[in-house]
Amino acid sequence: MSSVVNNDKHSSRFQVILDKNNNFYKPESSRSKCTPFYIETEQCGLLRPEFVKQLVNYPDVFVKDKDEKDREIVRLAPDLKTPLIRTEKVNAVMEELRAKDLFCGLRGWRNENYDVKTKFSNQPLMCIERAAADLLGIVHYGVHVNGYFYNDSGELMMWIGRRSPNKPTYPNMMDNMCAGGLATGLGVRECMMKECAEEASVEDDDLNNLVAVGTVSYCYEDERGVFPECQFVFDLELTSDFVPENADGEVGSFEAHPISKVQELIITNDFKPNCSLVILDFLIRHGIISPENEPHYVTLVEQIHKPLLNLYR
Amino acid sequence: MSSVVNNDKHSSRFQVILDKNNNFYKPESSRSKCTPFYIETEQCGLLRPEFVKQLVNYPDVFVKDKDEKDREIVRLAPDLKTPLIRTEKVNAVMEELRAKDLFCGLRGWRNENYDVKTKFSNQPLMCIERAAADLLGIVHYGVHVNGYFYNDSGELMMWIGRRSPNKPTYPNMMDNMCAGGLATGLGVRECMMKECAEEASVEDDDLNNLVAVGTVSYCYEDERGVFPECQFVFDLELTSDFVPENADGEVGSFEAHPISKVQELIITNDFKPNCSLVILDFLIRHGIISPENEPHYVTLVEQIHKPLLNLYR
Repeated sequence: MSSVVNNDKHSSRFQVILDKNNNFYKPESSRSKCTPFYIETEQCGLLRPEFVKQLVNYPDVFVKDKDEKDREIVRLAPDLKTPLIRTEKVNAVMEELRAKDLFCGLRGWRNENYDVKTKFSNQPLMCIERAAADLLGIVHYGVHVNGYFYNDSGELMMWIGRRSPNKPTYPNMMDNMCAGGLATGLGVRECMMKECAEEASVEDDDLNNLVAVGTVSYCYEDERGVFPECQFVFDLELTSDFVPENADGEVGSFEAHPISKVQELIITNDFKPNCSLVILDFLIRHGIISPENEPHYVTLVEQIHKPLLNLYR
Repeated sequence: MSSVVNNDKHSSRFQVILDKNNNFYKPESSRSKCTPFYIETEQCGLLRPEFVKQLVNYPDVFVKDKDEKDREIVRLAPDLKTPLIRTEKVNAVMEELRAKDLFCGLRGWRNENYDVKTKFSNQPLMCIERAAADLLGIVHYGVHVNGYFYNDSGELMMWIGRRSPNKPTYPNMMDNMCAGGLATGLGVRECMMKECAEEASVEDDDLNNLVAVGTVSYCYEDERGVFPECQFVFDLELTSDFVPENADGEVGSFEAHPISKVQELIITNDFKPNCSLVILDFLIRHGIISPENEPHYVTLVEQIHKPLLNLYR
């Protein structure tokens, strides 16, 4: 046994990916200033102070209250009893705040609804416009696929998308082959198949090869809001003659890179951070990053799987 | 959107596996009564009250103290400055407690040393006898392999070990094909290869197919102590004509089962709990358990990856 040299200061070169995706866990984040958001007896969001200040101006929808530990919380008005009425009332507030242009997050309004649930397997308590979900710090679910193939020399190659310059978020950045938010009413696999067809023109035969391989979960914040996210991850092995073609204008182009090159790309600022995380998980599951070549292996795996519901405690 | 039916009470049929492996997180566990164990400025264990009572009888080794939050802690005597001297002094106390036969955990003494680290990538602060590590609530690391093959009809089959009736722990129970604790001085892959050779007579050619695929982490307690554990998981695809043969007496027999049968076996009490967890992770990574057939998919993945260092906060 060697002397007590602490390696703590040396972190993985992939740590940069975790730092971006999990910046909400850092001491300097807004986490300690956030107010829990409750529907009925369950916390289902986290509100930054500047947002609380606005919400309490709508006391028929958002009510200041205390929880059982006497912490200040914001509660959805208890007389809003059905998912439908909650969705309507909250949406009306969000539309008003959007019209006032107080929050840049609401500029990204998409007319796409997300379910608000206390956990994924529960029934939704209400729905909410995707852009407003970030302001309420509600857990988002989405789907990502690692599209890969072996070239004629047997080398593992991965398809990387380049986001369209017209995308409102992360324009021009590198991305997984396909990905998308899980909108209200869509099944997980159904959503993944839809994205594969629309974003990369994957045909039905190849879609049968989609394999669900787990989830990644993380929480970050930026100028738009707080993003506790859980992505359902799929692997899709393709034939070497398949070339993805975008059909919906969301992807600018696709490039296939050897996996060794992909390892370098995902730590650059050119990569959309959560897509880097999905590929990091791929590299670990496929033994490309291993305990032998990555001393911080245990830490990486742990940080790819943040327990999101703990955020609320 | 349907009405507010909460599915919370319905859990996965695999939840029983998580309940066993993560029983330390339950409200009724001894967790809230445990005292943090520190070496230098770092917490690296958790002590149950009955154990604290004995340790404080050795004040030249274990010192009652307070941490920066004014919580009661037990600290390794600060004048024990090197890993070697700490190992010697702590071991002497453990040998004395073993001689008194106060703790059933110490009856399982194996003369096998574990490293005590604040995290896996750090240098060890000391070593400790495996049986005593549980009393100190120190994170254990180990290796497990999923040995599988496709039979002539293309069906995925998995090799399940039956533990020897002579094993001191979990005799006769079903197990992964091979597994073992990561003893001081062994590399992760090296340890896995050694276990595969000793426990199942896997030959060098096949060992090259060992793929590191991540970790599982969990924390349970039983009459022996507290077990925060992190297992490095490997997948090993074997040829259909390979038959494992035990060489070290630790495994009684091996059986190959179709993966559909394995899914039923791992939820029985006949299976060693952490081996069930490793196979649950396999089923998820290989798309056998999927978001389509398992509504509690997100919860399962989260509970397979408990952040162990959070235990100490």
